[in-house]
Amino acid sequence: MSKDVNVAILGATGAVGKELLELLAERDFPLKELKLLASPRSAGSKINFQGREITVEAVSDKSFAGVDIVLASAGGSISKTWAKIAAKAGAVVIDNSSAFRGDDDVPLIVPEINPEAAEGHQGIIANPNCTTILMGVAIYPLHQIQPIKRIVVSTYQSASGAGARAMEEAKVQARDILDGKQPQAEIFPYPIAFNLFPHNSPLNEQGYCEEEMKMVNETRKIFNAPDLKITATCVRVPILRAHSEAVNLEFEQPFDVDRARELIAAAPGAKLVEDWQNNYFPMPMDATGRDPVLVGRIRQDISSQNNLELWLCGDQIRKGAALNAIQIAELLLEKNLLTGANSTVSV
Amino acid sequence: MSKDVNVAILGATGAVGKELLELLAERDFPLKELKLLASPRSAGSKINFQGREITVEAVSDKSFAGVDIVLASAGGSISKTWAKIAAKAGAVVIDNSSAFRGDDDVPLIVPEINPEAAEGHQGIIANPNCTTILMGVAIYPLHQIQPIKRIVVSTYQSASGAGARAMEEAKVQARDILDGKQPQAEIFPYPIAFNLFPHNSPLNEQGYCEEEMKMVNETRKIFNAPDLKITATCVRVPILRAHSEAVNLEFEQPFDVDRARELIAAAPGAKLVEDWQNNYFPMPMDATGRDPVLVGRIRQDISSQNNLELWLCGDQIRKGAALNAIQIAELLLEKNLLTGANSTVSV
Repeated sequence: MSKDVNVAILGATGAVGKELLELLAERDFPLKELKLLASPRSAGSKINFQGREITVEAVSDKSFAGVDIVLASAGGSISKTWAKIAAKAGAVVIDNSSAFRGDDDVPLIVPEINPEAAEGHQGIIANPNCTTILMGVAIYPLHQIQPIKRIVVSTYQSASGAGARAMEEAKVQARDILDGKQPQAEIFPYPIAFNLFPHNSPLNEQGYCEEEMKMVNETRKIFNAPDLKITATCVRVPILRAHSEAVNLEFEQPFDVDRARELIAAAPGAKLVEDWQNNYFPMPMDATGRDPVLVGRIRQDISSQNNLELWLCGDQIRKGAALNAIQIAELLLEKNLLTGANSTVSV
Repeated sequence: MSKDVNVAILGATGAVGKELLELLAERDFPLKELKLLASPRSAGSKINFQGREITVEAVSDKSFAGVDIVLASAGGSISKTWAKIAAKAGAVVIDNSSAFRGDDDVPLIVPEINPEAAEGHQGIIANPNCTTILMGVAIYPLHQIQPIKRIVVSTYQSASGAGARAMEEAKVQARDILDGKQPQAEIFPYPIAFNLFPHNSPLNEQGYCEEEMKMVNETRKIFNAPDLKITATCVRVPILRAHSEAVNLEFEQPFDVDRARELIAAAPGAKLVEDWQNNYFPMPMDATGRDPVLVGRIRQDISSQNNLELWLCGDQIRKGAALNAIQIAELLLEKNLLTGANSTVSV
């Protein structure tokens, strides 16, 4: 992690883009130059970064010359258009969209779980789905000791999963309801304030929504466990920016609950939060703005001797998106896995 | 259901008490006299019922003379003090607290599930826990066709479960947060607005809270299925008065998902709410103030061939408490199961 690198953020004005900027500063990322890219519509706006004003440029074929790392968080269609162009220009694209996550030649990485997967990259690395990252960090330490057979998970997902405008909508609706007015839904299909609903991503023929299938398919890929059985119920709740998950894990044999606690307490990226005396466990208000995935209420499932129950909360924008992307970037530097002009490695 | 009866409400000023009054009026319950009882602290206040003003009386030994049915919703300690006195005076007590639910000689009834249990009553009938009632109504139609082996349930429980003051607290906190102020928690241990937390009832040695153990033990009693395996994760969410639940059901053999839909669509007390095209399923905003338990997203579990997933929402104060109690009262009239002076049956 010695030499400084040129970084471009594609989609710098969104919720994840803003968090990327904050994290680059906070973590003292070895930046040489920082380029902010967006669609022509958002170009021209100015963003303050460490006291400097940076003008957002419209993304074009020329944008990626000399760029080492592109942090892309402008949605799937933008990524599909630009990621390969950027990679061809010599950058490594760390893509926050779902566009490439299923591709065999694109590593899908949670640095605490499968950092080795970065070694095979061909210019694009996918940042996993937020809900999947948070669950993965919490349960992988157990999976390493005794492979998980089956997961039944229910999620409690914040508005931030649908972007900054969805967070704003949740607040406006809450105020309307408190004032006795009818809440208006624009970003979400239904009001989210004082309400909740199954995740509104498209449903497949089996009745699972895309978000749920991301948890299934991405967890399998990240864990390199193609036979891992997973069922998920993903639900949007009136929370601003931290996701929670109730996870039931089935193993081949009983998993000692105290051992599970020790493993999670020692796991990178996770923090054990359990105060049984005071009934204090992970909550969105405590996970918000923080790096670790908070994990607690680890219990022996009373309905099945080979199962454990656990509960987790994590910041959806931070570890669920921006932080994980930055950690992937740090991993590339550390392992000398850049591909472009600035790198010692060539593709 | 011919002759009119004398009813007393113990705890008429609470959230459930108010709903009981509303339902007695709405359902045209065959009332002769209505008595409102409360602790000496709440006595003296006046409540409007169908145009009449009724003064709340302080409960005493004399309160139950001539009363046929007591609807008790003033909490466990009040019920423990007065239920047996009322029963001895000839009333049937329909008790909304958890005080007697586990007692062998006290029937625990959801009229859509086990109305026959009322026949054995000895003056006290317990109204089950709200979360348990809602799940029971949704899944019993399936259990009747093929016994459920194991349930994994995660709940999304509204503030109303902790009473009217908790609902008010949720609103005050939401406004404070929107105004940039620090939310204050009094009823709940932590802020509930824009936050959520595992249910704050006392934890047992296995790490399950009381609410979760109610779901386990009460479902077994209501279904008369002592070996039914259940694990639950109960969570309080910033919703005012409807609970939601994500339920995973394991059977001995595969349960046809279309058959499950038909059964739930035809089930008393349940309403199938599924619009797969529009990703529209049960939501608290639609369940609020309504009688039926809304059930939907019935799916074949992709992780296990013998399992189904389903999702439900129900009004916590209505079917989760007051409506179920009134339905028990109606059942007593219909089956001529009153015990007192007004009844043809004697104990």
